[in-house]
Amino acid sequence: MNGAESLVHTLLASGVDVCFANPGTSEMHFVAALDRIPGMRCVLGLQENVVTGMADGYWRMARKPAATLLHCGPGLANGLANLHNARRARAGIVNCVGDQATYHRPLDAQLTADTEGFARAVSAWTRTVARAEDVGRDAAVAVQAARTSPGQIATLILPSDTCWDDAPGGPAAALPVPAAPQADPHAVRNAAKALRERKNVLILLGGLALTGEAQKLAWRVAQATGATVLAEMSNGRTERGRGRLPLERVPYPVDMAVEALKTFTTIILVNSKAPVGFFAYPGKPSRHHREDADILLLTRYEADPIQALTALAEELRAPAVDLPDPGPRPEPARGVPTPEGLARTLAALMPEDAVVADESVSFGRGFFKETHCAPKHDWLQITGGAIGCGIPLATGAAVGAPGRRVVNLQADGSGMYTLQGLWTQAREKLPVTTIVLSNRKYAILLGEYRGVGANPGRTAMDMMDLGNPDLDWVKLANGMGVEAAKTATLEGCGDLMKQSFAKDGPFLIELEI
Amino acid sequence: MNGAESLVHTLLASGVDVCFANPGTSEMHFVAALDRIPGMRCVLGLQENVVTGMADGYWRMARKPAATLLHCGPGLANGLANLHNARRARAGIVNCVGDQATYHRPLDAQLTADTEGFARAVSAWTRTVARAEDVGRDAAVAVQAARTSPGQIATLILPSDTCWDDAPGGPAAALPVPAAPQADPHAVRNAAKALRERKNVLILLGGLALTGEAQKLAWRVAQATGATVLAEMSNGRTERGRGRLPLERVPYPVDMAVEALKTFTTIILVNSKAPVGFFAYPGKPSRHHREDADILLLTRYEADPIQALTALAEELRAPAVDLPDPGPRPEPARGVPTPEGLARTLAALMPEDAVVADESVSFGRGFFKETHCAPKHDWLQITGGAIGCGIPLATGAAVGAPGRRVVNLQADGSGMYTLQGLWTQAREKLPVTTIVLSNRKYAILLGEYRGVGANPGRTAMDMMDLGNPDLDWVKLANGMGVEAAKTATLEGCGDLMKQSFAKDGPFLIELEI
Repeated sequence: MNGAESLVHTLLASGVDVCFANPGTSEMHFVAALDRIPGMRCVLGLQENVVTGMADGYWRMARKPAATLLHCGPGLANGLANLHNARRARAGIVNCVGDQATYHRPLDAQLTADTEGFARAVSAWTRTVARAEDVGRDAAVAVQAARTSPGQIATLILPSDTCWDDAPGGPAAALPVPAAPQADPHAVRNAAKALRERKNVLILLGGLALTGEAQKLAWRVAQATGATVLAEMSNGRTERGRGRLPLERVPYPVDMAVEALKTFTTIILVNSKAPVGFFAYPGKPSRHHREDADILLLTRYEADPIQALTALAEELRAPAVDLPDPGPRPEPARGVPTPEGLARTLAALMPEDAVVADESVSFGRGFFKETHCAPKHDWLQITGGAIGCGIPLATGAAVGAPGRRVVNLQADGSGMYTLQGLWTQAREKLPVTTIVLSNRKYAILLGEYRGVGANPGRTAMDMMDLGNPDLDWVKLANGMGVEAAKTATLEGCGDLMKQSFAKDGPFLIELEI
Repeated sequence: MNGAESLVHTLLASGVDVCFANPGTSEMHFVAALDRIPGMRCVLGLQENVVTGMADGYWRMARKPAATLLHCGPGLANGLANLHNARRARAGIVNCVGDQATYHRPLDAQLTADTEGFARAVSAWTRTVARAEDVGRDAAVAVQAARTSPGQIATLILPSDTCWDDAPGGPAAALPVPAAPQADPHAVRNAAKALRERKNVLILLGGLALTGEAQKLAWRVAQATGATVLAEMSNGRTERGRGRLPLERVPYPVDMAVEALKTFTTIILVNSKAPVGFFAYPGKPSRHHREDADILLLTRYEADPIQALTALAEELRAPAVDLPDPGPRPEPARGVPTPEGLARTLAALMPEDAVVADESVSFGRGFFKETHCAPKHDWLQITGGAIGCGIPLATGAAVGAPGRRVVNLQADGSGMYTLQGLWTQAREKLPVTTIVLSNRKYAILLGEYRGVGANPGRTAMDMMDLGNPDLDWVKLANGMGVEAAKTATLEGCGDLMKQSFAKDGPFLIELEI
C-alpha cells in the first residue's frame, strides 16, 4: 500500500466520502488511489475557488466534512477566498493539497510556492506530511480537527513522494471527535439574572444557535423575560420558514445597525460576537451596539447552544411557548422586479425543504422579512464577504443535501467570480436554480462611492459598471451545459422558477433588474 | 489632499500610469482619487486573477510596472496564482491592496484576513502603510522596488483610513532605480577560459538574456568556441522570429530534457539557473543535467546580460557573425489539427511584431521549432506553472504593447480558470486573437496518469475529462461580448486567424483538436 492509498482508506474510515477536486500532476497517485478504492464520490470543479466553495456548502448541509484535492501552492491560492468564507462560516473541511516531493522542493522548481504560508491564514490546523508511513495518522488527525466543534479547516499538505512511497503501517483508524463544550454554569446564572432584572436585553444568536431547535429555546427565554432575539448579520446556515422563529438579522448598513441596536443596554451572546461593521467609515462607529451596553457571553461559537439555552430556560423556569405565526403564504408578485417582490415570489413558490444560497449582496437585504412565511427551508449566506461564494456554495449544498432543491440568489458581479461552478452543476445533474440578479454593475460599490461624497465620473464608473459589453448569462450558462432563460418581470421569473423546480437538473434564470 | 490622492499623484510621478483593478468598498477613496486626478488608465478585471495576470502581461511588454487595485485579503488571494506566475517571470508590479482601517482590524470583521501573510509568499517587498502622511513615501518605495532589476512584485497594503485621512506632506517624488548589476570580471574570465579550453559547453539563457540583442551576443560567443546555446524551459518573454536566433528550449518532459542535456559537461548560466524538473517522478532525476556537469555562473537573473555577454565576446575576441537563416516562411497547413500544423499556420499568417501568449500546455510543446521562420515576434510563456495565465497575460500584453496583434494559444482546461478576462478584451477593444485548443480534457494529466502506470478508470477520468457536458467556447465568448467561431480544421483556423488579424478588437477561435 502506498501513501495515497493509505490516505483514501483513512478518509473513508473517518467518514469522509466526498472529495471536491481539481488535481494536478503531483496528485496523480492520489487520483489513482481514488480510482482503485471504491467509496469516494469525486466531484470536479474547473477552478479551485469552486472546489473549496463546494466543500463549504457541503459541510453546511451535511454537517460532516468533505475532502478537497488541490494542486500545490497556486492551486490552494486559487481556493483561498472561499476557504476564507468557509472559515467565517465555521465549516469543517479536510483540505488536501498535493505538493512537490520532499527532496524536490529545495530545487525551487517553477510551481514551488509557500504552500504552508498560504494555508495557515485560513486553516485552524495545518500539517505537511513528512513520510508516506505518516499519511494515515496525519489524515486521521486532520479529519478530527475538521470535525472539532463547530467545524474547522484542516489543511493536509502531501508532498508527492509521501503519496507514491510505500506506507508500511497502512491507514489509520478514525479518531474520536470531542463533544461541543457545555456552557459555564456561572454564565448561565449571569445571563438569567440579567434577563430577570433588566429591560432592553438582546439575545444575539449566531452559528450553531441558528437551528430551529435553538431558535425555539431562545424564543421561550425571550417570551418569559421580555427580551428581544436577533441573529448576527452573516450566518452560515439559518433554519427558517414555517415552524421556525421569524428571526431578523442585525442589518448590514452602519446607520441601520446602530438604529436596530440602540435600545439594547444588555446583549447576551449565544454562539455570536458583539456586532461590528463589515467595514469602517469615516466618522461612523466600528462597534454597532451602544457604547455603554453590557456584553454577556452565554456561549462561544464552539459551544453547544441547545444545552446552554435549555439550562437558561430552566434556570428562568420559562414555560414552553408557541412560535409566532409568520402569516399566510403570499401570492407570486408581478411586474418590475423589486427585492420584496422577488422575495414574495420565492416564498410563494419554493418547495418544502429548499436550500437558499444567498449571494444577492445589495439587492437582497430585504429578502428575509418576506420569506418567514415560506415552507421550511435553510438559508446560507456569504459569511466572509469574499465574493464568488454563491455558485459554488449552491453546488456543494446540492451534493450535501440530496433530494432538496437549491435556489441560488446570485448578484451578477459576484457570480462572475466563480461562474465555472455552473459546469459542475450540469455534470452532476444537481437540482440548482440560479437566479442571477442582473443589474450590470457593482451596485454595492456605487452606493458606497456615493457615501464617499461624490458622483462617479467616467474613470470611477469604468471600475463599477459591468455593462459595455453586457454580460449574457444565458449564453454563459449554455456554454457550460446549463439550461437558461432571461426575463425582466417577476411573473416571468415565477414561471421559470416553477419550470425549474419541476426538473431534476440545474437551470439559470437571468433576471434583469 | 488625502492619502488616496497622494497615492495616485506619487504613482503618476513615478511613471506608473496604468492600473488594473477590481476595487471594493475599502478602496472607494482610491477610486474617487483616480476619478479626480487625470492620467491613469484604469482597466477593470472581473476577477482578481485576471487583474494580476494582466499586470504581468503588461510588464512583460511595456517593461515598466502597472499598479493593481485589489480588495482586502481575499481579493489579493484570488490574484495570488498569477502573482506567482509573475514572480517566476520576474515581472515588476506595484500591487496595491486596500484593507480594513487600522483601528477596525482588531475587531476581526468578516472580511478581515491575513493580508500581509498572503502577500509575502509572492512579493519581493511588502509594506502596510501606517498613516496617511506615509502613503506618498511608501508608494514611491514600492515603485522603486517593482522597478529593481529584473522586476519585482512590491505589495503595498493600504488600510482604508490611510486613504481617507489628510496627508499633509502630499505625494512623494520618484526614487532613482538602481542599474542592473554588471558581471563579475572573474566570472567573465572563468567562462571564457571554459569556452576556450573545453568541449561540450552549453550556454543557457534565461530572463533578460532572451532579447534579440543578447541572443546575438550568445551566438557570437558560441560560433567562436563551438558551444551550444539553449533557453530555459519557461520564459517570461523571448524575442523570436526572423532576425533572431532560432533558439530551442530545454524540453519539459524529464526524459527529453535529460537527453537534450546529456552531452554537456559544462553549463554557463546567463541569467538562468541549472535545469531542474517541473515535478519529481519516482526513479527519475530531479536535476536534468549530468551529475558531473560543471555549472559556471556568468550572470544571475538580475544582472545585465548585454554587458556580460559583450565582455565575454571581447575576452574571447569573438568576431561578429550572422545569425543562421531560419528557412522560408511556410504555407498554412490544412486538415486535422496537429501541433506542427497549427504552428506552421501561425508562422505563415502572423503579422509582423505579433505577441504570442502561450498557455497551450501539452499540445504546444512542438510550437517553437515551426515558428522560428515567422516574422519577428515576442513569445510569452506560463512561467510558474499556475494555470489560468494565458487569457489575462494576453489581455495585459495588448495594453502594454499598443498596435500589436496578440495571439493567445490557449489550452481549454487552463482557459476556464480565468475566462473572465475575455470580457476585459471586449470592453477595452483589444486586438487579441484567442485560439482555444479544445480537447475537452486535462490532456497533460492523462499523460501523467499513464506515467503512474495505470489506465484511468471511471473515477480518475471524472477528474481529468472536461466533456460531459462539453464546454462551448463560442457561447462563453459571446456571453462576454467577444466574437467567436468554431472550427475543426487547420484551413478553417487559418481563415479565422486572417479574419481576426484584420479586426481591431478581440476574437476567439475554438479549435477542436
